[in-house]
Amino acid sequence: MKDTTVLYQHGTLATLVAGLLEGTTTAGALLQHVDTGIGTGEGLDGELIILNGQAYKVDGQGQVTLVPDSFKIPFANAHFADFTDGDHFEKISSKAFQDKLLKEKHLENIFFAVQAQGTFQHMKTRVVEQQQPPYPTLAEIASQQKLFEAINVSGTLIGYYSPDIFNGVSAAGYHIHFLADDHSIGGHVLDYTIKQAKVQLQVLETLEQHLPVQNAAYLEHDFAQHDIIGDIARSE
Amino acid sequence: MKDTTVLYQHGTLATLVAGLLEGTTTAGALLQHVDTGIGTGEGLDGELIILNGQAYKVDGQGQVTLVPDSFKIPFANAHFADFTDGDHFEKISSKAFQDKLLKEKHLENIFFAVQAQGTFQHMKTRVVEQQQPPYPTLAEIASQQKLFEAINVSGTLIGYYSPDIFNGVSAAGYHIHFLADDHSIGGHVLDYTIKQAKVQLQVLETLEQHLPVQNAAYLEHDFAQHDIIGDIARSE
Repeated sequence: MKDTTVLYQHGTLATLVAGLLEGTTTAGALLQHVDTGIGTGEGLDGELIILNGQAYKVDGQGQVTLVPDSFKIPFANAHFADFTDGDHFEKISSKAFQDKLLKEKHLENIFFAVQAQGTFQHMKTRVVEQQQPPYPTLAEIASQQKLFEAINVSGTLIGYYSPDIFNGVSAAGYHIHFLADDHSIGGHVLDYTIKQAKVQLQVLETLEQHLPVQNAAYLEHDFAQHDIIGDIARSE
Repeated sequence: MKDTTVLYQHGTLATLVAGLLEGTTTAGALLQHVDTGIGTGEGLDGELIILNGQAYKVDGQGQVTLVPDSFKIPFANAHFADFTDGDHFEKISSKAFQDKLLKEKHLENIFFAVQAQGTFQHMKTRVVEQQQPPYPTLAEIASQQKLFEAINVSGTLIGYYSPDIFNGVSAAGYHIHFLADDHSIGGHVLDYTIKQAKVQLQVLETLEQHLPVQNAAYLEHDFAQHDIIGDIARSE
């Protein structure tokens, strides 16, 4: 049964911040819960974007591939798509666009998914390189991220908004990934300008937060040793 | 379908802290998701304890009543019971008991339910009085709480443990309610000593966090004006 009011989250952002990067679910298992979303692979193996039930990975070289069902995932945000009809936006910066969505629709305190399909005058993404155990922390890895930029690129931007009170559980505010139609660029979105795009939203009433309760490293980790909120600010 | 791995939460503790005490679900709706749990009524109308699919309210005078399906609820933590076989505990303080559960079983980073049925050498509970709009904040209300105490009382203690990273969403650590077998005392538990009790746990892999997305007061509230974490520490 597809419940289109649910945001399914496996793992927490705090888990990544703490350097617990072991994959604790798989793409195959995740795709039983969702058909749309974002995430990352084991050891931060690429930036994931799930569209129409297909999970794509953008790797540290910027290459885009479909991942197999066995692909391991420590963290993902995803849902079953049932977006609103959509509005048309033209020539607007990422900040102006994102603020406008929040303020006009009173969305600050709830979870929602946003999808923008169209042409982007400018797109800037980042991808981190896959790490090997013993894993460094997210802040250490983020300092080595690879940046990618494109102009006048067509594609799909997909992401989620989380209310402030959930910071640490997820990234408070927007967390957005992108995939170009021709797969020439993708990844975790740092900035963009919309040239023209159809923008669709989906309010998600319920956060279904799944924790890796079988994972020994997770169970035994002392999270009190980290400044989780500070490290999120330094990494995202 | 009863999923016994899910902790169902309606509302967030942050919502109560902010003084948003309007009921946004009902006992009848809640009991479709759960048969066991804790919560509070509209305007903090009593302390709820749900046992075997029956929702009881302990009011500001300490009276225990079954609530009707129409009873309005702003916040609840609940689940479908499927507890472990259980251990027997004797003569142990609340702190020693609760610390022992966490440390021996590596439960610090996951959600779980705890139930203790037996006799309590000492039990101390609190109940707040129902408030009327415009609602005060939780910290203001907590300063007027009524305290109840009993010795050698038989009953059921039921509660949940939430990992630190979820503080604000729920109360990090334990959040426990009690109901005496003879309904002579109940409420939000402040302290207790177990004389002898059967203690059962249930690990909950998934937090199903439902937000009141139809409630105008919630949607329009500016949570940034509150010190949510500080106010939880002052109220719980």
